[in-house]
Amino acid sequence: MISKRMEKMLIEDMDSLVKPANEVAVVGTSNTLDHALLLMTTNKYSVVPVIDEKSKIKGLISMPVIIEAIMDIEDVRFDKLGEIKVEEIMDTDFPVVTMDFELEDILRMLVHTAFISVVDDDEVLIGIITRQEILTGTNRIVHNFERVYDVKDREAERV
Amino acid sequence: MISKRMEKMLIEDMDSLVKPANEVAVVGTSNTLDHALLLMTTNKYSVVPVIDEKSKIKGLISMPVIIEAIMDIEDVRFDKLGEIKVEEIMDTDFPVVTMDFELEDILRMLVHTAFISVVDDDEVLIGIITRQEILTGTNRIVHNFERVYDVKDREAERV
Repeated sequence: MISKRMEKMLIEDMDSLVKPANEVAVVGTSNTLDHALLLMTTNKYSVVPVIDEKSKIKGLISMPVIIEAIMDIEDVRFDKLGEIKVEEIMDTDFPVVTMDFELEDILRMLVHTAFISVVDDDEVLIGIITRQEILTGTNRIVHNFERVYDVKDREAERV
Repeated sequence: MISKRMEKMLIEDMDSLVKPANEVAVVGTSNTLDHALLLMTTNKYSVVPVIDEKSKIKGLISMPVIIEAIMDIEDVRFDKLGEIKVEEIMDTDFPVVTMDFELEDILRMLVHTAFISVVDDDEVLIGIITRQEILTGTNRIVHNFERVYDVKDREAERV
């Protein structure tokens, strides 16, 4: 359990925690790898969510996985970029939550992943939660918590 | 200023905060882009430090920047990968600290960057500090701070 005091200071506004889908770069399941690589290069992202034609999230695709997919023993076969679809190589084991998420779970998940996808009950992508927002909150806590609240050592109390 | 209580709980062990250079994937300034791309693919990193022949850090190189460097108006020119050196396109404006860093500065910098390079006085790469360690510490604080310390609302005191 995270205390209410910590939660309030970590995330000032729960709505701002989720970066909305219309501000997130995504690729389609049926896109080919050359399209994905171009989109990720233009947006300077190395991992993006993959959605189907109904905007449902189906996986994540990353630049290292794209390059790996076109490598053979001797060479990188860039001519294969147009032949492989994103859905063939995307990572389908990815962190995802619905809007009724617990902050506690988000914090635990973000230790191991750069972002978490947020979906509605039909698996449609609503947005993403990134490490950046949590780190902003961490800065608030370490700087302000002991100004706002009265903190004492428990040992000292026993004296 | 970060209070001693917060600092102690955020980072249990300052040494473990820095991932040592021998565990960090790096590329050389004079490597060509095909070498860099292969190394990053193998290690699943999309950004790595660039060092010179004396192990001094000179910049960062990322997959999006590599792909961008070989794009022209109409196409991605993969044949150019072997012709361009890392030092020609690396990002030379990158976050770096020496070992006498203040945790406060690290926290502020990590809001905007995925990792910080740590160097000695000769600019030799000692290691990196990642967001992962800070997020581990954030989990400790939000779960344990109010168990270890006695926290009260300041308003309540005035009554």
